[in-house]
Amino acid sequence: MSPKYTIGIDFGTLSGRAVLVRVSDGAEIATAVSEYANGVIDERLPESGIRLEPDWALQDPDDYIRVFAEAIPAVLRQGGVSADDVIGLGIDFTACTMLPTKADGTPLCRLPEFRANPHAWVKLWKHHAAQPEADRVNAVAAELGETWLPRYGGKISSEWFFPKALQILNEAPEVYEAADRLIEAADWVVWQLTGVETRNTCTAGYKAIWSKRDGFPRREFFRALHPRMENIVDEKMKRELSPIGSRAGSLTPQMAELTGLRPGIAVAVANVDAHVSVPACKVTRPGTLVSIMGTSVCDMLLETREAMVEGMCGYVEDGILPGYLGYEAGQSCVGDGFAWFVEHCVPPQYFDEARSSGRSIHAVLEAHAARLRPGESGLLALDWWNGNRSILVDADLSAVMLGMTLATTAPEMYRAWIEATAFGKRVIVEAFTSKGLAIEEIVACGGLPEKNKLFMQITADVVGLPIKVSASSQTPALGSAMFAAVAAGSTAGGYDSIEAAAEHMAHLKDETFTPNPAHRPIYDQLYAEYVRLHDYFGRDAGSTIKKLKRIKLTVHG
Amino acid sequence: MSPKYTIGIDFGTLSGRAVLVRVSDGAEIATAVSEYANGVIDERLPESGIRLEPDWALQDPDDYIRVFAEAIPAVLRQGGVSADDVIGLGIDFTACTMLPTKADGTPLCRLPEFRANPHAWVKLWKHHAAQPEADRVNAVAAELGETWLPRYGGKISSEWFFPKALQILNEAPEVYEAADRLIEAADWVVWQLTGVETRNTCTAGYKAIWSKRDGFPRREFFRALHPRMENIVDEKMKRELSPIGSRAGSLTPQMAELTGLRPGIAVAVANVDAHVSVPACKVTRPGTLVSIMGTSVCDMLLETREAMVEGMCGYVEDGILPGYLGYEAGQSCVGDGFAWFVEHCVPPQYFDEARSSGRSIHAVLEAHAARLRPGESGLLALDWWNGNRSILVDADLSAVMLGMTLATTAPEMYRAWIEATAFGKRVIVEAFTSKGLAIEEIVACGGLPEKNKLFMQITADVVGLPIKVSASSQTPALGSAMFAAVAAGSTAGGYDSIEAAAEHMAHLKDETFTPNPAHRPIYDQLYAEYVRLHDYFGRDAGSTIKKLKRIKLTVHG
Repeated sequence: MSPKYTIGIDFGTLSGRAVLVRVSDGAEIATAVSEYANGVIDERLPESGIRLEPDWALQDPDDYIRVFAEAIPAVLRQGGVSADDVIGLGIDFTACTMLPTKADGTPLCRLPEFRANPHAWVKLWKHHAAQPEADRVNAVAAELGETWLPRYGGKISSEWFFPKALQILNEAPEVYEAADRLIEAADWVVWQLTGVETRNTCTAGYKAIWSKRDGFPRREFFRALHPRMENIVDEKMKRELSPIGSRAGSLTPQMAELTGLRPGIAVAVANVDAHVSVPACKVTRPGTLVSIMGTSVCDMLLETREAMVEGMCGYVEDGILPGYLGYEAGQSCVGDGFAWFVEHCVPPQYFDEARSSGRSIHAVLEAHAARLRPGESGLLALDWWNGNRSILVDADLSAVMLGMTLATTAPEMYRAWIEATAFGKRVIVEAFTSKGLAIEEIVACGGLPEKNKLFMQITADVVGLPIKVSASSQTPALGSAMFAAVAAGSTAGGYDSIEAAAEHMAHLKDETFTPNPAHRPIYDQLYAEYVRLHDYFGRDAGSTIKKLKRIKLTVHG
Repeated sequence: MSPKYTIGIDFGTLSGRAVLVRVSDGAEIATAVSEYANGVIDERLPESGIRLEPDWALQDPDDYIRVFAEAIPAVLRQGGVSADDVIGLGIDFTACTMLPTKADGTPLCRLPEFRANPHAWVKLWKHHAAQPEADRVNAVAAELGETWLPRYGGKISSEWFFPKALQILNEAPEVYEAADRLIEAADWVVWQLTGVETRNTCTAGYKAIWSKRDGFPRREFFRALHPRMENIVDEKMKRELSPIGSRAGSLTPQMAELTGLRPGIAVAVANVDAHVSVPACKVTRPGTLVSIMGTSVCDMLLETREAMVEGMCGYVEDGILPGYLGYEAGQSCVGDGFAWFVEHCVPPQYFDEARSSGRSIHAVLEAHAARLRPGESGLLALDWWNGNRSILVDADLSAVMLGMTLATTAPEMYRAWIEATAFGKRVIVEAFTSKGLAIEEIVACGGLPEKNKLFMQITADVVGLPIKVSASSQTPALGSAMFAAVAAGSTAGGYDSIEAAAEHMAHLKDETFTPNPAHRPIYDQLYAEYVRLHDYFGRDAGSTIKKLKRIKLTVHG
């Protein structure tokens, strides 16, 4: 029998990436990227040229369809694989990225009467214009004592589903009325592939306040939010959710024609880019923290035990893998912070050195910083350039550095910033372990583990846990391909569980970053000081950092 | 009658500078600089090549004599002034810069038997190898409850006279025994000029624990320090001090020959470079803070009232001007801190801009930073790159910056550092005024007022006082020339008081930096936060900054 394949598609912010994966061993046979023609729409609507307000970020749903049309044939061609051997398709998406559609799935923005209405388009995850609506959601939930509020750390974000829905209702009631469905783009593309409307438990749980036990928020809450929203779930959504790891349906003949795949092959329920990476990191049970390390860092943990862990972004039953609570935490700025340092704080001599030695500026700084011993610079920093997501959940915080002298150098500061992000990670790990949720190791994926070995080693030293690294550089797409294999099932040549898929298809590198015992005592001392500053500046509503933010806002008026 | 002139000589760390000044109006007719051939001796002794320990810093007294031989003829020649019209000579010096000599003033290091002994040479102010001796001085003084200790903020520095003397005794008792005199280089050069050993009240008061009321520390203290030191004052020093503003003696025929001046002209009692600048800033009475602004900042205040002002470097009766208590405070790092920032923290684009616009990098940063409004960056810093001299008197402190985000730029940080030094200045001003010592304005001199107008304006805004600037760019030498005119007296064509000399010879620029009332409310808020951090990090012996220093020392072993 010829080998079987699945295709995973990762819908990112600027493009979709398809990866053709061999089911037997997870080998990534071919990759193709399709850029969204309209990218992120944040200035003017296509065609009409309608100007958008600040903080808006839209997308064109037809760009997603073009990913199917372009990238799937491309990987088949590149991989030299027959469509007969592709048994399934899975996707993951940014979230909450949502849109209004008609009952048949037609996006409102495709209709001529709504084409020039910004609210008819896809609201991208980073559409931040629904902050007043988020404030209202939080205020009403607090006032009514909604029980789900604490599960999300007491506050939901303007990026989430209901603030975006409420913004449509407030600002374009005609769009809200015309929308038969309000749906995550993740679920919408699966609908387009299968002809069946499903809604996945992951986006619903993390972004639309759904829980397996309690479902969506009650009608009274929605009514208090806005009288016309009372029945939003029944009118424009769905109460039946499809668990991660199940089959949404089969590929329609039309989509088979568009993509070159065979009609009827399995399509998995949609997933979120971060969460789908967990099994792609070969993690299918508790005890291992999965850390997606890039510009920011997302940490995920599977657990069977329920615990109120401080400052988590939320925990969702069946949110990551069926049968487990999925806990999510994160650091809002890591790689971005290092990039800021390199752009704004590094003197010319290091750029000269990079040029003359043919290395990147990061490599030069890393080489200098690696020669330093922990504690020798006398520096300590708080890594809050973009606030603190976990565990303080506070966007008003900002970064701090202490200990500079006339002898302080740029590599010393670079290392101090790296150490600060490692201390931030340890705070998150200890938030879990202090509630009895064990963490024995970390598995990392994303761009940073490749780019910055010093960051990896320092994180291991500071946190005191071994760090393994995913062998794949495209874990979200690999994870989607794995879920596609599960949706296909063993009878079709796939697997019957995500655990089985992970066992065969996910791989880790041989390299493990092991904590250096010689570094631990000094890092323990520095960490104690980090925590002291973290609490001093972070937990007091009147702290100097908060005051500086208030003064800044006053000045900016 | 032809105009009369005096010459002031400022002995700095690397060179001596002679300025020929017209007595009638203070016009600076000519300037000449003589570099010390042996500079700062901190690696090997001249001739013998004997290697020095770390923290040593010596000088060669013959370099000082060469300044007389080179720079005085040079200014006469340049100025086209006849020696007949030069009525006096005054000098100022770094302090405490001291040396051991024979009874006739011969430096021990000139004698063949001591030429290869480092302790026989001049110990420069920044010789920091006597820290163990300073620790012992402080411990013994505290144990015996010496009443002078509080006058110096509870702690004397390793740079001062008795730690240096004790180091000689501890490490080279043969040099200590052979030394008939231990003397400030300031007084030694005056001795060479006049043939008369005098000791000025300024260096004795600020560096040798002398006070007009109590004299030097008592014998019991010195005995406790070291049995052989019991009679150090009577054996190797002098109990009679010569007040600032008096005449030390007359120029000897030998020195007249060496310099081209007339024998018998007045030579003023020696002075310290900072203190001699006060009348050169036209300040001869209380109410005006004189601020010498350069790499570091020295603040001086004349007063009639006695007050225990927190963290002053000391107050000395007749220490600056006769009839006044001279208070001294300071910031250990200002211009040096800005230079550190420019060298270690500024990215290439600003250097490119400086090159392409033909300006200095400081000018470019200043132009960008000047466009910012107070508080708009959200940044706040503690200016402790080199510890804190006033009011905390703590060398273990280090710098801090708060409030960085991904949008923070180098000019914003540059401005925050400037603001931090201004806040530090305000702490000093308020330490005085909170004790009832009024300060109504500041008069600045030194290099910074010329180089950095933004620094001057921000200081005025933050402190809330107008700042005037000395018209002279070489106030120490001008001050020495003024004291020379007083030593000569009115009968010789000079003046009978330093007040009269200041009235005629010292000038201020027309420019005044006036506090901008629009900036005050924000700066008041930021200052309140500065003080909060200052106290949080600075006053607690277990603060994170102190811990970082301890960890750093552990690591460096």
